[in-house]
Amino acid sequence: MVVLKAASPPVPSVNKINNGYPCSNGTIKPLITPSPSSFINLDQGDPEVFRSYWRKKSEECTVVINGEDLMSYLSDTSNVCWFMLPELREAIQRLHRVVGNASVGMDKHIVVGTGSTQLFQAALFALSPLDSPNPINVVAASPYYSEYQEEVEILRSGLYRWGGDAREYDKNEAYIEVVTAPNNPCGSIRRAVANCEGEGKVIHDFAYYWPQYTPITQQYDHDLMLFTFSKCTGHAGSRIGWAIVKDIEVARKMTRFIQMSSIGVSKESQIRVAKIIGVICDSYQKIGSSLDSDELFFEYSNRKMRERWEKLRAIVEKSNLFSLAKYPKAYCTFTNNTSESYPAFAWMKCKGGIEDCESFLRNLKVFVRGGKRFGVDQKYARVSLLSRDEMFNEFLTRISNITSDRKYKLN
Amino acid sequence: MVVLKAASPPVPSVNKINNGYPCSNGTIKPLITPSPSSFINLDQGDPEVFRSYWRKKSEECTVVINGEDLMSYLSDTSNVCWFMLPELREAIQRLHRVVGNASVGMDKHIVVGTGSTQLFQAALFALSPLDSPNPINVVAASPYYSEYQEEVEILRSGLYRWGGDAREYDKNEAYIEVVTAPNNPCGSIRRAVANCEGEGKVIHDFAYYWPQYTPITQQYDHDLMLFTFSKCTGHAGSRIGWAIVKDIEVARKMTRFIQMSSIGVSKESQIRVAKIIGVICDSYQKIGSSLDSDELFFEYSNRKMRERWEKLRAIVEKSNLFSLAKYPKAYCTFTNNTSESYPAFAWMKCKGGIEDCESFLRNLKVFVRGGKRFGVDQKYARVSLLSRDEMFNEFLTRISNITSDRKYKLN
Repeated sequence: MVVLKAASPPVPSVNKINNGYPCSNGTIKPLITPSPSSFINLDQGDPEVFRSYWRKKSEECTVVINGEDLMSYLSDTSNVCWFMLPELREAIQRLHRVVGNASVGMDKHIVVGTGSTQLFQAALFALSPLDSPNPINVVAASPYYSEYQEEVEILRSGLYRWGGDAREYDKNEAYIEVVTAPNNPCGSIRRAVANCEGEGKVIHDFAYYWPQYTPITQQYDHDLMLFTFSKCTGHAGSRIGWAIVKDIEVARKMTRFIQMSSIGVSKESQIRVAKIIGVICDSYQKIGSSLDSDELFFEYSNRKMRERWEKLRAIVEKSNLFSLAKYPKAYCTFTNNTSESYPAFAWMKCKGGIEDCESFLRNLKVFVRGGKRFGVDQKYARVSLLSRDEMFNEFLTRISNITSDRKYKLN
Repeated sequence: MVVLKAASPPVPSVNKINNGYPCSNGTIKPLITPSPSSFINLDQGDPEVFRSYWRKKSEECTVVINGEDLMSYLSDTSNVCWFMLPELREAIQRLHRVVGNASVGMDKHIVVGTGSTQLFQAALFALSPLDSPNPINVVAASPYYSEYQEEVEILRSGLYRWGGDAREYDKNEAYIEVVTAPNNPCGSIRRAVANCEGEGKVIHDFAYYWPQYTPITQQYDHDLMLFTFSKCTGHAGSRIGWAIVKDIEVARKMTRFIQMSSIGVSKESQIRVAKIIGVICDSYQKIGSSLDSDELFFEYSNRKMRERWEKLRAIVEKSNLFSLAKYPKAYCTFTNNTSESYPAFAWMKCKGGIEDCESFLRNLKVFVRGGKRFGVDQKYARVSLLSRDEMFNEFLTRISNITSDRKYKLN
């Protein structure tokens, strides 16, 4: 019996989850309050920023899984994606209807994956022609997500190969373009840009197209759209992503790839994600609800991201060392407000003669990801804004101090 | 707070798990008692056979996962496999020490995967030379697991390629041999057989090297050994497998592959599998335990498999249509008994002029997997013995009846 309600009375935890992160010597150091000499990891986008929301909602989101539950490989053999639990499919459809960010009409097929990383590879497989002697080129406009190139190249596939920057692609050959919107690393809204005579297919990676990061300006209805729960709510450990796919043959091939890759997707994660999505949607759909806005997940998380951006911009503006892009304001159909974007990452550019932003920040014992990994200049670096408050605040302190030091020296 | 004990009082289930399976028209038909006209799916090895054990142990195996639990990508950054929860690693080590089937000493590294399917591909990646202009050949002795070839070929990798039957491999080139022991489909114990001048690396797939299927004759200590929880206990929906690896560089590369493939493995599944393994090991290690043998998982499951094999052999022996291999008896260091093997699949050979075993059984509305998929003659077919009792018994009824019919006709 899988139970999706809070267990009562709560049973004491007998399992301590380790949320340690790497320090210089590779050992675990579960810092709560980092000291000025601590290493701070803002390289990966581990989404810890929304944790206090889930702490408050922890009981409400409880799943209870008994020994006999969820044993079979199969979930719903009437569905193209036979390993997807029907309750997860329904929860995903409901979430997109509540948020209004993507069309999940009757003409769409949903494929669940072990994170959107697995679905990206399933999409490459499904969109690559099987009858071509040459691999199809996979392109993305720079700066592009740092892992795409390695994910494409890792097995030296004969089906597809990395084709580099989409803006420079000029071959008269078929291609696949990956469009990340909002973009990782730089937060801008993207459209397909490859401009050549070859036939292009597009994968839309919408990992960050949620109201906390960017105004929801339209309900997208593209051929193949990827989403991940990791960045939607911060539950990265569940490894759940999904694709919304128009063409049933593409959905079938993606399902086939995931079968060959891992014979489906964890059902424990599926059932838990369905439960958490249900809690989010319930809070928005309660009639006569007296919830304050901090009780609503996207309002809470949007405020959290906005506050971080405001603090960061205030410090960067005082500095003569960094600059940050400005994002245009837009009307959000979900919040019914006009606002800026508050991306998950700060895409920082060093000024004042600093040539390597990653190394510069590493000298401050802050790990970030340099521009080269995203196909651009090393003056740029991506800084995760999804860490815990303590890490984010320590980062602000350090760049604030170095600014003062530098100014002092310049005088 | 992740709680690994039974929740009390039990909360009624609000989630109905669908364990439907494919019928001829693709719709779900959750048969409990199959009628004589029903299709019976004994093609996949969906492990439903041990379900009644887990029903009895259901409360004891309960995990309670709250909203704030298991959110991070990271688990233990001091470990090579940074996404593996320490409690799962410890549970796996404990299980192998209790069963005695594989060495998990201090010199070994454990890598968790989304089923052993993902680990097989991670192993291919890790064992393939990156500096060779040609892909390395991957071989397995026929009859070999039907999915290996497609898993190797699906992306047309430039790192590795399918090399066919290990016994026929005679190239003077490096190769990877996959040894499945006990073998899927035929249940025999295997060793590496490729005999050529090239340098060979071996992946040992020990999915079925558990006491219910075969006597545990030794504690294996090979370079790279794969296990899967699906076939150990029947919890296939969790998609948890693990590799035991000697060479830390191989473990690192496998971890890297899984990072590129899915950024880790579901933590909900990891925590649940750790819990269930703990329940199994506790039952064997309780001092002064008065548990009867049906309370002990491997005793229960071994009896279940033995009963099925005895029923099947009795019917096959009366028949003039099929034959089954005999397995040698061996002393099991776990049960301290001498016994036969009771493999998860029956590897049936048709007699009496029947040329295509799969088609013959399909005429009885029984789906099985024909010999060609395993690289051998279509007189053979693999029949899953892991289905629910009702399916297994209906299968026996049908082959029993056709035997009678055929005899009747022959008269």
